[in-house]
Amino acid sequence: MSELRTRKTGLSDALREMSALLGDRLTTSMPVREAHGRDESWHPVMAPDAVAFAQSTDEVAAIVRICSAYGLPVIPFGTGTSLEGHISAPHGGLSLDLSQMNRILKVNAEDLDVHLEAGVTRKALNVHLRDVGLFFPIDPGADASLGGMAATRASGTNAVRYGTMRENVLNITAVMADGSVVHTARRARKSSAGYDLTRLLVGSEGTLGIITELTLRLYGIPEAISSGVVSFTKFENAIDAVIETIQSGIPMARIEFLDEVQVAACNRYSKLTLPETPLLLVEFHGSEASVAEQATRFGEITSAHGGGAFQWATKAEDRTKLWEARHNALYASLALKPGKQGLITDVCVPISNLAEAIKGTKADLAKSAIVAPMVGHVGDGNFHLIMLIDPDNAAEVAEAQSIHDRMVLRALALDGTCTGEHGIGEGKMQFLVAEHGSGVAVMRAIKKALDPQNILNPGKMFTL
Amino acid sequence: MSELRTRKTGLSDALREMSALLGDRLTTSMPVREAHGRDESWHPVMAPDAVAFAQSTDEVAAIVRICSAYGLPVIPFGTGTSLEGHISAPHGGLSLDLSQMNRILKVNAEDLDVHLEAGVTRKALNVHLRDVGLFFPIDPGADASLGGMAATRASGTNAVRYGTMRENVLNITAVMADGSVVHTARRARKSSAGYDLTRLLVGSEGTLGIITELTLRLYGIPEAISSGVVSFTKFENAIDAVIETIQSGIPMARIEFLDEVQVAACNRYSKLTLPETPLLLVEFHGSEASVAEQATRFGEITSAHGGGAFQWATKAEDRTKLWEARHNALYASLALKPGKQGLITDVCVPISNLAEAIKGTKADLAKSAIVAPMVGHVGDGNFHLIMLIDPDNAAEVAEAQSIHDRMVLRALALDGTCTGEHGIGEGKMQFLVAEHGSGVAVMRAIKKALDPQNILNPGKMFTL
Repeated sequence: MSELRTRKTGLSDALREMSALLGDRLTTSMPVREAHGRDESWHPVMAPDAVAFAQSTDEVAAIVRICSAYGLPVIPFGTGTSLEGHISAPHGGLSLDLSQMNRILKVNAEDLDVHLEAGVTRKALNVHLRDVGLFFPIDPGADASLGGMAATRASGTNAVRYGTMRENVLNITAVMADGSVVHTARRARKSSAGYDLTRLLVGSEGTLGIITELTLRLYGIPEAISSGVVSFTKFENAIDAVIETIQSGIPMARIEFLDEVQVAACNRYSKLTLPETPLLLVEFHGSEASVAEQATRFGEITSAHGGGAFQWATKAEDRTKLWEARHNALYASLALKPGKQGLITDVCVPISNLAEAIKGTKADLAKSAIVAPMVGHVGDGNFHLIMLIDPDNAAEVAEAQSIHDRMVLRALALDGTCTGEHGIGEGKMQFLVAEHGSGVAVMRAIKKALDPQNILNPGKMFTL
Repeated sequence: MSELRTRKTGLSDALREMSALLGDRLTTSMPVREAHGRDESWHPVMAPDAVAFAQSTDEVAAIVRICSAYGLPVIPFGTGTSLEGHISAPHGGLSLDLSQMNRILKVNAEDLDVHLEAGVTRKALNVHLRDVGLFFPIDPGADASLGGMAATRASGTNAVRYGTMRENVLNITAVMADGSVVHTARRARKSSAGYDLTRLLVGSEGTLGIITELTLRLYGIPEAISSGVVSFTKFENAIDAVIETIQSGIPMARIEFLDEVQVAACNRYSKLTLPETPLLLVEFHGSEASVAEQATRFGEITSAHGGGAFQWATKAEDRTKLWEARHNALYASLALKPGKQGLITDVCVPISNLAEAIKGTKADLAKSAIVAPMVGHVGDGNFHLIMLIDPDNAAEVAEAQSIHDRMVLRALALDGTCTGEHGIGEGKMQFLVAEHGSGVAVMRAIKKALDPQNILNPGKMFTL
């Protein structure tokens, strides 16, 4: 208790200093604090002691210097849509909300890049870019902030073609634990100059620095886009078709798997009439001729694996409706069982092991009464499970947890990773150790070197 | 001197222990030592005290443990083809030669990846892969080792389409400064699990860990490939054509610029008859239809920018000859002026600034008598200069150094990087500071945390 009291005393002094800086953009209001300790995961709410709304990199640096002086934890917050408890405050401290840092500072159309503040969301960016014929491809389901997406190394449906945040961040401006401001790179497409601080911060979940600005790669909106769905009677056939498609080198823009439970959920939530069997939802990008050729070759592969007729979404509005339904898969799943919570997880395996990974979880679910839609960015070997559970039913929680743990350990046994795109946060700390072994010691050494007081998002990723 | 003596004493004890481990694979023979202190750069030879030839990760770990116990510097060595003095031994110590670790351990054709030892060279890998229809695209001019290519974040002519070593290394096995062995990742295509230790080691130039094994991404050999050249009367027009090509989204596999001096050098060295004007050497990969479409669109763009007729290399042997000539550009340049040395450098800028970057250096060269071929991976905004100088002519060296420094500082002023693919080594330490500012403090903190004795390739990248 004495330690807590010391920190609390530090807290009120720290907040007084911060208040002079931020005025009413610093708050200790309970509803605001609670809203900032909660993400979209099943992990319990841990509210911060206060919430600050920053408006510039300099302001973030000033805030972090105060936090550093008082040893106060500081937890960066974008849109609160993370899925592993990343923005929870297990050690109290300050939630640093970057949503007001939402300016798109410069679009360099000639160089296919954009410089912006970390609070800009992916949808806001794409609305802004539409008129110049460019787009940013990374699309987790939620309309997350781009800073948050970088911090969790997010990806989404387009990653099979365009890569993840790892490949698409050119430069980061970050405030480090001592309040210093670092620019990790310039705007050159590639560089061999020094350690890759950009990639070190991408995926560091706010534990090494606070991302305040980014330069991102952009892409020309393709001349031609076509989307559609192919249904299968057995999921194994759908996965075999995916494997052959990827191996064949067809440059798929998107290739998504939905199991029959997820399709039913999407039909209901997004008012679609898709056949309620395992299906692949795909998209081709390119010239008119190239898209037509890709679709033909893909159709040949799915037919050979027992896929049904390819259902085109030829009109732009049908395409948009289809992909909105896909992006709302999580919300559609939660709506299947109102009042239940979603135990959400993702893993990623080498594609040749994907069918085995899915089969194992399907077998576990077959023995259970838990409803659990499955959906995946299968071109990358990445899939998600949403188990709908009653958090007050201890037996159900334990059963779901056991299925979850088996899914993750199976992925590791199949040379995969415990998370393809959701991150570690609070939820997967034990699996980070299982996956990385002695690598975690290296991570800890880096963390201690860059944040010796452990004030940046403490209690996440690994213990110290 | 007393310090040196202490170290030397440590050296003989350390070598005695290592000799027990390695037998005649440990040597202090002067020719071997000298060969291991020299790369292909203009930087002076600094030979190591001894050379060890390792044959396994476990052996590297045992060697590093001995070096750690005696505080002995250890400098990883692949093929000695680096260009910024990376493998020089300014503090003495052990050169750790990995060329005998040349086994290709497993090709996972289904997953498009390969696991191999760090001493395998890029050409050996591609010979091995030919029969399974796969290839590894990263191609610096030299037949470098893949471990060395990862350590310097190498790229080459295909990077515009396939990325650099940054994008194509899935997993690294590395021996850290304390002799511990780390596997940075599994074989999944993407992961959000923890800090990106893979990307931290890629480009770390042997200063954070010794790369002993890698898993690399592979690609299917394209169904159709076509190459050719387009000549221009002015380099500015060639560069404008490149910019428009990249912006148009044509998925160029290769788009290389050679100035008239470089073309003349290649003609002479590789027995070609290319027109001796600025030219673009390009390649298209894809299906037959897609390659034809790309070539047509590219032809339209070059015509609009005053390019000559497109000269196809339709036969595979013509194509091979053309690209071998490109890969031998450095050796062709050196052969222009026998007895002279090449002051070789590279920078990379946002593509919209490429013409200005090149123009500035061209203007500097116009005022000088130094012969200096220029060649570039211009789709990435990356270009190289090879100034042919007499190392004993102090005035010429100083003039070349001044042109070099102006080229690098101009690239930085144009939002570029001091090196696109050669790395920092000993040669660009001052420019790393100019480029990264406070980021260098972060790099130093990481180095000190992971190698507190500074035994891993000391004296490179930055001072401590």
